[in-house]
Amino acid sequence: MKNMIIASTSTIFGSGYLDYILEELRSHFKNVNTILFVPYARPSGISHDDYTNRAKDAFSKININVEGIHTFKNTTEAIEQAEAIFVGGGNTFVLVNQLYKTNSMHALIDVVKNGTPYLGTSAGSNICGLTMNTTNDMPIVYPPSFKTLGLVPFNINPHYLDPISGSEHMGETRETRIKEFMCYNTQPVVGLREGSWLHVNGDSIILKGNLSARIFKHNQTPYEMETGSELSDLK
Amino acid sequence: MKNMIIASTSTIFGSGYLDYILEELRSHFKNVNTILFVPYARPSGISHDDYTNRAKDAFSKININVEGIHTFKNTTEAIEQAEAIFVGGGNTFVLVNQLYKTNSMHALIDVVKNGTPYLGTSAGSNICGLTMNTTNDMPIVYPPSFKTLGLVPFNINPHYLDPISGSEHMGETRETRIKEFMCYNTQPVVGLREGSWLHVNGDSIILKGNLSARIFKHNQTPYEMETGSELSDLK
Repeated sequence: MKNMIIASTSTIFGSGYLDYILEELRSHFKNVNTILFVPYARPSGISHDDYTNRAKDAFSKININVEGIHTFKNTTEAIEQAEAIFVGGGNTFVLVNQLYKTNSMHALIDVVKNGTPYLGTSAGSNICGLTMNTTNDMPIVYPPSFKTLGLVPFNINPHYLDPISGSEHMGETRETRIKEFMCYNTQPVVGLREGSWLHVNGDSIILKGNLSARIFKHNQTPYEMETGSELSDLK
Repeated sequence: MKNMIIASTSTIFGSGYLDYILEELRSHFKNVNTILFVPYARPSGISHDDYTNRAKDAFSKININVEGIHTFKNTTEAIEQAEAIFVGGGNTFVLVNQLYKTNSMHALIDVVKNGTPYLGTSAGSNICGLTMNTTNDMPIVYPPSFKTLGLVPFNINPHYLDPISGSEHMGETRETRIKEFMCYNTQPVVGLREGSWLHVNGDSIILKGNLSARIFKHNQTPYEMETGSELSDLK
């Protein structure tokens, strides 16, 4: 039975790494001694070791140990034997490329479906959707496919950002970008604002945090879904 | 001999499509009767016809005719026979995918190297670089490769945007994204601000418009290059 937290971001403005969601994580990972951390997305290009230490520092506050997947010889085995898994944010292209390179995709799908508690933030949340086509990241490497874990029946856009009123920048707004996606694809997209997360429990998918989420469906006007809503029918 | 305008954007805030650069285009396309327009990037998913009409309206102001490449049966032949070429902005992934699908990449490289005047805006400028790895666009389709025209010896980031001071959004700034690119790639990147363009004349590449450009090089701190600078040594 799936047990996942799919968070828009690791960090909200003015607080430390994972601080805003730490109490939620304490209960999500209760009875877990050690989390397997996947640092592949390398935010700002930092090393796997440095990124793992950042996760270690955060989880030490709730007395949970963290091990980086890159320290294991056999990554598939590390995933299969993990008590819990945390895939951190960074660049989704780099993350997905490395997950394919290490044959980790199927192992991740299997263990999460079988109940290994999962936490994703940002890029680590984007990959929970059907494809990575709605990432905000720059395509700095070319992965073998855009297909991702498909652990929820829609796509995710993390760090969802409302149009900035008064902006004179002519680049596309986030809403325009996702609407363009809807011209070529039929699956729904959930725009998760910073501070929001999805709690997946078996077949249930509940929107958590203080904010609403923006929902994009094929041939429909985008609309808001209030926090506390059930999203499992969205497909 | 190459003769290109590689513009950050088609439109600057508060003015119409191509208005800000129209006088420059009048001299760039002097003696040209008809421009071949490539509408493949489909901004907001609009049709090839609608997009071509938008270009037609703009160029009618300087008495130049526009034909959409999608109205030709043989796109390679259309490119080879064109008096001039304009590749419009929109989604770079959609554009590159369609250029590969129609076998247009090599034809474009050949004719531009042989002197067919070229105009690119936004996505149409991004593809003039070595690869599309520094596009800002959402990866809404999966192209067969990220390799692009390589008509300048570096990558281009159109719509280059300085960090927004006071922003509480935790998504990456443009500078952070390009720095991440530099962790995995060695070619330089030119961050072209809206209202700037590169004028390529044979081997010369001059920065035009009122603004400076931001230059990113492997293992170096990013720096500014003033308008009027020669960029041909950047490789």
